Parts: sequence; structure tokens; C-alpha cells
Amino acid sequence: MESSLPEDMAVASLLLEKILPKTGGALRIGITGIPGVGKSTFIESLGKRIIDDGKRLAVLSIDPSSSVTRGSILGDKTRMETLSKDQRAFIRPSSSALTLGGVTARTRECILLCEAAGYDVIIVETVGVGQSETAVKSMVDFFLLLMLAGAGDELQGIKKGIIELADGIVITKADGSNAEAAVSAKNVLVNALHFFNSPVSSWKTPVLTSSALTDSGVSEVWRMILQFENHSKASGHFERTRSAQNVSWFSEFFSDLLQADLHFNESLKEVKRKLESDVAHSRLPARSAAEKLMKSYYEMIRNSR
Amino acid sequence: MESSLPEDMAVASLLLEKILPKTGGALRIGITGIPGVGKSTFIESLGKRIIDDGKRLAVLSIDPSSSVTRGSILGDKTRMETLSKDQRAFIRPSSSALTLGGVTARTRECILLCEAAGYDVIIVETVGVGQSETAVKSMVDFFLLLMLAGAGDELQGIKKGIIELADGIVITKADGSNAEAAVSAKNVLVNALHFFNSPVSSWKTPVLTSSALTDSGVSEVWRMILQFENHSKASGHFERTRSAQNVSWFSEFFSDLLQADLHFNESLKEVKRKLESDVAHSRLPARSAAEKLMKSYYEMIRNSR
Repeated sequence: MESSLPEDMAVASLLLEKILPKTGGALRIGITGIPGVGKSTFIESLGKRIIDDGKRLAVLSIDPSSSVTRGSILGDKTRMETLSKDQRAFIRPSSSALTLGGVTARTRECILLCEAAGYDVIIVETVGVGQSETAVKSMVDFFLLLMLAGAGDELQGIKKGIIELADGIVITKADGSNAEAAVSAKNVLVNALHFFNSPVSSWKTPVLTSSALTDSGVSEVWRMILQFENHSKASGHFERTRSAQNVSWFSEFFSDLLQADLHFNESLKEVKRKLESDVAHSRLPARSAAEKLMKSYYEMIRNSR
Repeated sequence: MESSLPEDMAVASLLLEKILPKTGGALRIGITGIPGVGKSTFIESLGKRIIDDGKRLAVLSIDPSSSVTRGSILGDKTRMETLSKDQRAFIRPSSSALTLGGVTARTRECILLCEAAGYDVIIVETVGVGQSETAVKSMVDFFLLLMLAGAGDELQGIKKGIIELADGIVITKADGSNAEAAVSAKNVLVNALHFFNSPVSSWKTPVLTSSALTDSGVSEVWRMILQFENHSKASGHFERTRSAQNVSWFSEFFSDLLQADLHFNESLKEVKRKLESDVAHSRLPARSAAEKLMKSYYEMIRNSR
């Protein structure tokens, strides 16, 4: 599935078409948070809770940086020790291949494969680099943001626009001397949430505290997610979102194909680079540049016959 | 320039290329705020202040809704009575034509025309419907958000992600019995700003209060904008942003041209609609649908020879 060889991709498309009727049955959960928030240990605790509920669980990662470090398979496995040994859990780090559609498209298709393989719950985690949160948001039913209480009642690591994506927020490491700070951070956050719209109009984004160390709050998080699922399915939001996600994957994939044409054709790439430099230096209006690039693109397609 | 007739568009492209060397000289200011915030009266006051500085001013609007109401030329002129009578000011409501690239592309090109015509300051205002703020942000040097103090110290009408776009914020109608609420709203906002990154790393988004009625705070707003201009030019941010905006206009325009191919070709549109419905109902994977659409697109281009 992850191969970028043309002949493999043709088979991959066929495989996806075949398994499609068996997909869509899992609850898809996205989890994000800055490094140090305790994501792995949190997912271990939550994952264990989910497995104890009799569910089969798959954990996938979207890590754009792994294309640089060339895969963190061992790292991913060892940092979720309990889960990785459990037969009911499947842990799959993101593909390190820079293929068409990128890590995002690969992970979306990995979700479908896992569903066809019978997994009931799929967690997609991201380290929160670049656009990865938006990417994860576009493929899950519930999006969970993990945050840390910092010094005083400050909240750390709030990235632009992330709060607005969250269907639920958990302050992690709420134990020991940190417990009080976590509660106070929670209150600050609840106040701050007045400045945001929650992604689902009839759902008020809950803020919970949790400790993977004392295992406290984890059951509450799982309950919140199940509540959201019920709420979202009852209102029709669940199905609507899934449909909309499919349509936007389609449209993104099509854009990727168009982009790939520009990317993998050397002469077209050269034309584009030249035009970009012209508009950047105000030597050519954007409109003219776009028209010129379009002409070159048409030529390329006609000549590729 | 606003015509969508192919022969006019060719002339428009040529015109843009000719005037390009005379463009780029103006300070471009974006202003947004919900209806009722007093945008017109604020722009009147600020505009008068700018003209008093010896500058020539153009006021443009981005109003996606005007494509429905078919232009609000009279409305726009009368709601800025002083400015519309002043020879040093030019007021131009947004085109109501739904042409290629939409209102956004038209307004960007109108900025260039105004600059070639010698205007020193260009205000682009938006009513804040849909994506119009992001559109305005993509074409200005300074983005100003107008806000109202509501009951208590609540702030009203904060739309998703808008605060993060603002280089400056002004609480309007800070007069009479409202003056106190405005100050208190300002304080709430200054606190809330801790949760956001300012668009320019070395610039802390100021929050000011203003009253068009008593004309208070308007000079301070103008001073803030000029400060930003100096700061931004000194750091190189100004030029970098302009270049990046040009490149992204180019890339957007090219996407528009690609989209237009899908939009104006009936048979291709039909293929796309059918595929969308297939992916929405999980009858086809996004990947396969995109590949099929790409094939049809190639066919169309080859046949259009």
C-alpha cells in the first residue's frame, strides 16, 4: 500500500476498492499534544482501557518528521510497551516514504486497512509538527488535545488554531505536586474556550485532567469519547462528517495528482520556478503567471499522449 | 478589469503587466469586524485622519454577499458620506460579478490599479462573511480587527481564528456609558491574547479603544499602523510578506484556472459530481475517484486541441 511504484499503486487502488465494503466500522480517534505532554504513556493507559472493554485497537502515527529520521518503528514499539505486547493491539508508526499524497494519504488508507482487518477503535496520534493536526482532524471522528499545566496557571504549547479543532481536551500529568496546577490550568482553559467555537455546535468541548502515573481520569476520557460518539451519531453529525471527509480526501487526492504533474515533470517545474521568481519580484502579475503556467501544463499533457 | 469575457481578460492581463512597475507603493490596510461594530464610521474617521496627513486614500470592499444583492454601490457611498465627497478619497465597493478567481482576485487587482493611479493608502474592508478575512489578510500589509464590548466584560463576535490574523485590535464605540465596558473588554482581550501567537513574531498585537463619535483614539490607531509599517519594513518582514503574497496569489490563480476547467466543462463536471457521490457513500475509495477524474481531465484537454 505504501509503495510508490506505478504497478504497486495500481494494485493498491484495486485492493482499496475491494476492501471498501468492510471499512468504516471503527471509531477513529485523533490525539495530539506537544512533545513532553506524555502522549505515549497516555495512549498506553487509554489503549489498555479500550482493550479491557473488549475492543481491538490499532494505533497509527502521523509524524512528518519521520520522513527525515527514516522511521521510528523501534522507538514507537518500545515507548508503548504494554500495548505493543498485547495481541489485541496493533501499533504502526507512519510510513517514512515521501510518496504521492504524503504521510496523510497513507495513514488514511491504513485506517481503511485496519477497519477491514477488524479493528474496532483506531487511534491516530500526531506529534503536532506543521499541518499534521489538520491532517489528523480530517480523518478522525473525535479529536483529542493533550495539554500540560505549566508554571503558575499558564498553559503551554498552544499552537495556532489547535484548540478550535479539539472535541475534547485533557490536561496530563495531573498528579503529585502538579495536581493543583492542572486543575487551575483547566479553569483557565475553560474560560479561554469562551473565545472559541467548538467544532460541533451542540457539543461543548470538555476539559478533563488525567494522570497516566496514577491511572486517574483515563476512564473519564474514554467515557467522554463514547458520549461524543453517541451524541454525534444521534444528531447525524457522525455520518455527515464521514461523508464530508471522504469527499475532501477525494478532492485533496485529485489536487495531489495535479501537483504531482507539476512536481515530477522537470521542464514544467522549471517553468513554475521561473514564474514564481517573477511574481515574487513583481516582474509579472500573478494572473499572467498563472495563465502562462496553464499553457505549459496543457502542452505537457498533449505531448505526453 | 472585472469583465469575464475572454477578450477582455486578455486585455486585462496586458494592462496589469503594463502598470506593474508603478504598483506596490501604497500602504495596504485590511479592516474587518462584525456588522454593528461601526466599521463605516470608523473608516470615515480613520480615513479623514489619513487624508489630513496629506495622503490619497482608496477604500475597497470585499463583500462575498454582494454577489447576491448585486452590488451595494449606493449603500457604500452613502455610508461613508464625508469620504465619498472628498477628492482625495476613492471608494469602490466590491465587484458583484462572479468571475474567475472571484471577488478576491478582483480586489487584489483593484489594489494594483489604485497604486498605479497614485493612491498612498489603500483600505480593504470586509464584512467578515465566510473566508473573506483570510482573503483580505492575504492582500494587505496590516490587518486590523474591530470589536465591540458587549454586556459585562464579554467580547462579542469572535470568529474562529480571526484574532490570530490581527496585527492590531480596536474596541469601537468606547464612549458614554460604553467607555468603561470597552476598557474592561480591552483587558480581557489582552489576557486572551496570551493564547495566540501574533502574526509577526517581534510585534505584540496592540489593543486600543476608539470612538468615532467623540473622534477619540483614531489618531492612536493611525500611529499604531505607521509604527507597524516602520517596524515591519526595518525587519524585512514587509518585503518578505509582499513577495510571499505574490507567490501565493499566483498559485491560487493557477488553482482557480484548474478549477475553472472542471467547473465550466459540463461533461467533466458531471463526472466529478458522480465520483463525489460515490466517495461520499463509500462506494469508491478517494484514491480511485481522484485517478478516474484525472483521466477524464486529460481526455478533455487532449480533445480540446
